[in-house]
Amino acid sequence: MKVEGKEYRALWPEGNQVKFIDQRKLPYSFEIFTAKTVADVAFAIKDMVVRGAPAIGAAAVYGMALGAKEIDQSAELLRMTRPTAHDLFYAIDYMKNALRKGENPFDAASSYVEEIITLCKKIGEHGKKLITENIQILTHCNAGALATVDYGTALAPLRTAWRNGTQMFVYTDETRPRLQGLLTAWELYQEGIPYALIADNAAGYYMEKNDIDLVIVGADRIAKNGDFANKIGTYEKAVLAKENGIPFYVAAPVSTFDPGIQDGSSIVIEERDQKELTEINGKTVMPSWVQVKNPGFDITPKKYVTGYITENGILKK
Amino acid sequence: MKVEGKEYRALWPEGNQVKFIDQRKLPYSFEIFTAKTVADVAFAIKDMVVRGAPAIGAAAVYGMALGAKEIDQSAELLRMTRPTAHDLFYAIDYMKNALRKGENPFDAASSYVEEIITLCKKIGEHGKKLITENIQILTHCNAGALATVDYGTALAPLRTAWRNGTQMFVYTDETRPRLQGLLTAWELYQEGIPYALIADNAAGYYMEKNDIDLVIVGADRIAKNGDFANKIGTYEKAVLAKENGIPFYVAAPVSTFDPGIQDGSSIVIEERDQKELTEINGKTVMPSWVQVKNPGFDITPKKYVTGYITENGILKK
Repeated sequence: MKVEGKEYRALWPEGNQVKFIDQRKLPYSFEIFTAKTVADVAFAIKDMVVRGAPAIGAAAVYGMALGAKEIDQSAELLRMTRPTAHDLFYAIDYMKNALRKGENPFDAASSYVEEIITLCKKIGEHGKKLITENIQILTHCNAGALATVDYGTALAPLRTAWRNGTQMFVYTDETRPRLQGLLTAWELYQEGIPYALIADNAAGYYMEKNDIDLVIVGADRIAKNGDFANKIGTYEKAVLAKENGIPFYVAAPVSTFDPGIQDGSSIVIEERDQKELTEINGKTVMPSWVQVKNPGFDITPKKYVTGYITENGILKK
Repeated sequence: MKVEGKEYRALWPEGNQVKFIDQRKLPYSFEIFTAKTVADVAFAIKDMVVRGAPAIGAAAVYGMALGAKEIDQSAELLRMTRPTAHDLFYAIDYMKNALRKGENPFDAASSYVEEIITLCKKIGEHGKKLITENIQILTHCNAGALATVDYGTALAPLRTAWRNGTQMFVYTDETRPRLQGLLTAWELYQEGIPYALIADNAAGYYMEKNDIDLVIVGADRIAKNGDFANKIGTYEKAVLAKENGIPFYVAAPVSTFDPGIQDGSSIVIEERDQKELTEINGKTVMPSWVQVKNPGFDITPKKYVTGYITENGILKK
């Protein structure tokens, strides 16, 4: 991804250190966090210096490389940072195997990370066919390079088409409560892609006005039948897209499909901290007596999905 | 409306003064603003001590009562506060006529205000038939007593049914960008009605889960054919309600129907200040480089409306 005109990744090794774009500070300021030890990486994961499942996996492999001399202790330290993160456990196990086989720690880690980036690049290559000249696109949340080390999933087709000279305009939902739309706005701004951040309430208005030609979102988990879980509000956009005859695509690597989940009804939705609604960037914006409910994700049934953009091509129903 | 256990109105006369619930301070604190002169009332309107078209009309009639000795100057002073507010002009003209006919200023003003409240009460009486025991209702923005002096429009059926002993649960969209859902939360909290404030993104989730049985919203303006303009995001909720088979009602006095507007396509949507998105309660929550678009209202086509709750009963299509 471009940042201040240069190519960056969400994190990268540098000598015997791992550098991170500090996502706690984004999009307010651009700062680099340096991890010198596996404990520093564990802190970075726990404190959300890095976020997004693939990027957390990438942090974990570099963490294991930094802590290669104490394989089991390093693995335990990293595992404790996010007790429910699938990509994290997978990444730790991958490195345990590689280190036990005697592979070079940083080489093994980098080949894991290059694989993630290759998947995203392929999603970009397949998805760019959907990005026609002067298209207007809506996206929700941040399924960008910050979450996947580079390119992104939902943002990969846009980035690839833009770098190939295709003009476009992107509407990004601010994505309450956590305003991850600001991260998408930051990535688009850095890339030079024309965009506007809008209230989540305004997406329907622009669809109704024929100002949106295509919706692309990411996915946290896709059931066997095609139903998928993603950031709260995704379902609303999918219904509105269908009602307005707008194609609605999900961009995600094939690994996001979980054959163990038959359909969306068996995905449990997490009720998250009320402070996500009542505070913004550490500032309290609602009085303390206000009762809130804060579901973190929703399920979009497959009937609303036009297609799934994966590394193997665009899967239609 | 109930506030701290007592009956209040959004504004009321007291001797030779007019008192207002200071809506600039809500829902963070409950304070009373006192107007002693027509200039104080003009300030209250301009500075949003009072908001909502019917409540602004009520403020204007009391303003004219305070400035009854200088009819034309008082009218001019009030008119300048909001150069596009229909209810305001209507209220000023009503008082000019009444004062020229020699009516008692405060009596004339109070009879205007009682008429507004009577309409809202009737909306509550007709609408309460929709509020069945243990119903779960979604509302958007604030179409409550704060905006209409008492009872409200969308909130009138809920308040009336609640006072008649009907149990219910209300979901109130926070209504970004300006978070008027907080005012609705405050009214419900004061009335004792169980509720939860949710991100606008979460309404679809609760509809999909069958946790919402009924949607009631207010309207800014209703076209001859039934299309209506209301706060941004109303259209999204209407589409989601239809998709989920949930009845969607608009509560508004008959005067909101504008026979001069054929359909929604001729209603112009105002693009509002970007700061409404980038600041909350005076606190900056987004970096300065972020590009935003901020349409204030949207148009919901009549096909999404189950019925219109008016003072004359519930109009179905």
